[in-house]
Amino acid sequence: MCFVQIVVLAGGVGGARFLRGVRTAVPGAGVTAVVNTGDDVTLHGLRICPDLDTVMYTLGGGIDEERGWGRAGETWTVKEELAGYGAEPSWFGLGDRDVATHLVRTRMLDAGYPLSAVTAALAERWRPGVTVLPMSDQRVETHVVVDDPDTGRQQALHFQEWWVRLRAEPQPSAFVQVGVDAAEPAPGVQEAFDAADAVLVAPSNPVVSIGTVLGVPGMREALLATPGRIVGVSPVIGGAVVRGMADRCLPALGIEVSAEGVGRHYGARATGGLLDAWLVAPGDAAADVPGVDVRAVPLLMSSPEATADLARAALDAAGVSPSG
Amino acid sequence: MCFVQIVVLAGGVGGARFLRGVRTAVPGAGVTAVVNTGDDVTLHGLRICPDLDTVMYTLGGGIDEERGWGRAGETWTVKEELAGYGAEPSWFGLGDRDVATHLVRTRMLDAGYPLSAVTAALAERWRPGVTVLPMSDQRVETHVVVDDPDTGRQQALHFQEWWVRLRAEPQPSAFVQVGVDAAEPAPGVQEAFDAADAVLVAPSNPVVSIGTVLGVPGMREALLATPGRIVGVSPVIGGAVVRGMADRCLPALGIEVSAEGVGRHYGARATGGLLDAWLVAPGDAAADVPGVDVRAVPLLMSSPEATADLARAALDAAGVSPSG
Repeated sequence: MCFVQIVVLAGGVGGARFLRGVRTAVPGAGVTAVVNTGDDVTLHGLRICPDLDTVMYTLGGGIDEERGWGRAGETWTVKEELAGYGAEPSWFGLGDRDVATHLVRTRMLDAGYPLSAVTAALAERWRPGVTVLPMSDQRVETHVVVDDPDTGRQQALHFQEWWVRLRAEPQPSAFVQVGVDAAEPAPGVQEAFDAADAVLVAPSNPVVSIGTVLGVPGMREALLATPGRIVGVSPVIGGAVVRGMADRCLPALGIEVSAEGVGRHYGARATGGLLDAWLVAPGDAAADVPGVDVRAVPLLMSSPEATADLARAALDAAGVSPSG
Repeated sequence: MCFVQIVVLAGGVGGARFLRGVRTAVPGAGVTAVVNTGDDVTLHGLRICPDLDTVMYTLGGGIDEERGWGRAGETWTVKEELAGYGAEPSWFGLGDRDVATHLVRTRMLDAGYPLSAVTAALAERWRPGVTVLPMSDQRVETHVVVDDPDTGRQQALHFQEWWVRLRAEPQPSAFVQVGVDAAEPAPGVQEAFDAADAVLVAPSNPVVSIGTVLGVPGMREALLATPGRIVGVSPVIGGAVVRGMADRCLPALGIEVSAEGVGRHYGARATGGLLDAWLVAPGDAAADVPGVDVRAVPLLMSSPEATADLARAALDAAGVSPSG
């Protein structure tokens, strides 16, 4: 019997939920998630991988469904106590349950295990039902270039500082992937692309999630060599992002905040871009992305069933039958 | 005005409570605690200093009074989650509030600050009212030599593993201070001894607390050069230790588990030992420690008042008047 092999490029909350839909849509498939690590940060000596954790917790049943990130039933004692010492930063949502994950990860990294091995070890507990890979074992951190309102001079902030502390308010003029030159796709990424019947680009942030994954040297080439079709899902519906702050990121790269704009940014595989097909919301059916099979389907991941339907539509656009 | 200067050699719970009594007995005094760090251990990547924390929490009002160690109102989420990952060791009582202390400490140590500076930084929050010094900035860890019941061969365990996991059950044949050869008294220790009107040896474990402090190269010489009198408080009352497991430790060094035995082990300052005076319980008044002023006073630190009375008795034996 031949199992369907699917790769999903994913960021955090949206990517995790989309992955859950894929898992539901094709229970027998081998699914590999290639997850953004550009949001990763070291705080209080703990190595924190927000997108990997969101994917792991979401697929492992540990996520706080309402908040979308972090653990269900989370408590905040460690964070409060750190603040008691005046230990900065105090703005990051460091939950007690999360701290244990970070302690295990940090200890393993300090012992020399690569992030991909650490991620696999953590997944032993969560059993997400998909293979979760970091985009790279090398450290890549997204920094955001903004204008200092007082001095008018540019400064670069870690993504988390811009995203969490400043709520993405300062308009970014550029994003810098610190360390990306020395990065390469994590072990297993190339093999997953090579074996894929379909590669799905989750409706994650096109700039700081998907863009960061694709920015790893060798990633784009490895992706484009896949024998499967590449199908993207628009994170923009009717000119607005469903979740997150992609609308703060897209303009920095001159990308229009629309399904068409993001589709054109990814581009047609036939002409040097990524996409074979592009899923947009019914209201965006007029989106014109030359060379790409644009399909209008409901995009809102408002329930597990709706999300599984979306995944089925993506697989259908990839020419993959969920029955294998 | 001349303030009384007092140095206290201390381990964990008993030392911390005794220090609180000293602080109450002479509110105007300058008190310096020289604290055992031989129990320190790195677990889950966190640097843990049980005795320093017990002293800091006890004097800072954060201690769990009933348990004697750790924080009041402690929760155990991180520990439970670590167990969820199968992360070992699982036997150590790692509370959530405590984790924050360890994170701050570990981060500062990793940044290159010596333990004495880290301890001072943590004390900024707790304001213990005494100067808390680690015995040494160098890492010294007590290991316990025990016979393996299966093979009959000797093995050395970290003190915490023997103390907490094995509840001090395997009879130790020796204690090894790993790293002690490279250690020296922490900054401030020599100066404190030099300025001391009295040095009090708290009723802590004579082997793995006080013995470890005194085992730091240069410590004994620095102590004996003090112009103050040296007064010890027996941790043994009527042949039993009040708290802890000194009765498991003393025999390994051939020390009788009695106030007389411990007093003789410390020895008379006049003949190469430590003590000018030795406080024993009323029932142990017959204890004979040649060359030492043995005084019988109530030793049980059963209340803050009783503890302050004990401290006053110790200072009286040192010839120091609490009124300065």
